[in-house]
Amino acid sequence: MARNILPRTVQRLIDEFARLPGIGPKSASRLTFYLLRGTDNLALDLATALQELKAHTRFCSICFNITEADPCVICGDEARDPTLLCVVEEPLDVVAIERSRAFNGRYHVLHGAISPVEGIGPEDLKIAELVGRVQQGAFKEIILATNPTLEGESTALYLQRRLTGVTIKMTRLARGLPVGGDLEYTDEITLGRAVEGRQEL
Amino acid sequence: MARNILPRTVQRLIDEFARLPGIGPKSASRLTFYLLRGTDNLALDLATALQELKAHTRFCSICFNITEADPCVICGDEARDPTLLCVVEEPLDVVAIERSRAFNGRYHVLHGAISPVEGIGPEDLKIAELVGRVQQGAFKEIILATNPTLEGESTALYLQRRLTGVTIKMTRLARGLPVGGDLEYTDEITLGRAVEGRQEL
Repeated sequence: MARNILPRTVQRLIDEFARLPGIGPKSASRLTFYLLRGTDNLALDLATALQELKAHTRFCSICFNITEADPCVICGDEARDPTLLCVVEEPLDVVAIERSRAFNGRYHVLHGAISPVEGIGPEDLKIAELVGRVQQGAFKEIILATNPTLEGESTALYLQRRLTGVTIKMTRLARGLPVGGDLEYTDEITLGRAVEGRQEL
Repeated sequence: MARNILPRTVQRLIDEFARLPGIGPKSASRLTFYLLRGTDNLALDLATALQELKAHTRFCSICFNITEADPCVICGDEARDPTLLCVVEEPLDVVAIERSRAFNGRYHVLHGAISPVEGIGPEDLKIAELVGRVQQGAFKEIILATNPTLEGESTALYLQRRLTGVTIKMTRLARGLPVGGDLEYTDEITLGRAVEGRQEL
């Protein structure tokens, strides 16, 4: 009954917002009514941005990151180390690592991780493309920067096996205490890894 | 530098999402990459819903609720009590009260509350329209259902003064403990109101 009170177009936008991750029905209606109250431009700007998103973006044919131009700005940047390759699950991981300013090599985006539960196998990811790239390239080190989750670890293990013999050096990102974190509130597995990986001063 | 890594269209959608209330830069980029990964329809459906939102909605000329048809379904519903009027701040408040199924009268949406800090005076709200409606109508009771906040209380007080003499009975929604709430965690003002408004069994 409460649903009928809302105009169809309003309910439709609420439903569309609620399909997005992390947005429940309450947030969805708050967003919708915020847009109703706001200037016309706010809703229409968002609509235009959404329409242009897919129209103007594609995957880089080398690293499979999201890009407008092919190859992407990273693959096309001659100043970046061509002997260092960082393998990540998602384009957002590239953004995160770039933000750290700790890496100046090339990337390869897998677009997911191996997950038998969700029916995602190696053939669903950009793994064949990675192997081909490593075989052709002159990489001296491959950083397997998949997430420190069950799926990410399995994927790293799988890649390690596939790439053994093809490349010289493979590494994983360090596991330990997050900077600014609190020892008291750190889970036991992270703390265990931090103890194992302790470094001499 | 990290910004340049992202394609312009991707960054633009992130920026548009981040303009919405309750969505920070991190949620905005998560939403954007979710839409990038998802089917084309998801982003385009959302775009269409946004475009249609303003094109097909207007304010009801009687109660100022959001509607597609004028008058709205509530104002046009003969089965609802025409002697009972509930005054609320926002259209979402109508949805909330309808969901409670405890009210079967008419509504009046003010579209805000009086707030000197934000420069919102009585003339910025649908108050003149309310007074006109009350003068013409045959309302026996007006529920001033503005929020239990400083702005909502001031607005209710202002309306009470404006409507004294024009109408017979004015009420406010009961204040007290929220159902399912915990006495221990209730703030002292709410608890004070709950004690004042205690009811005999």
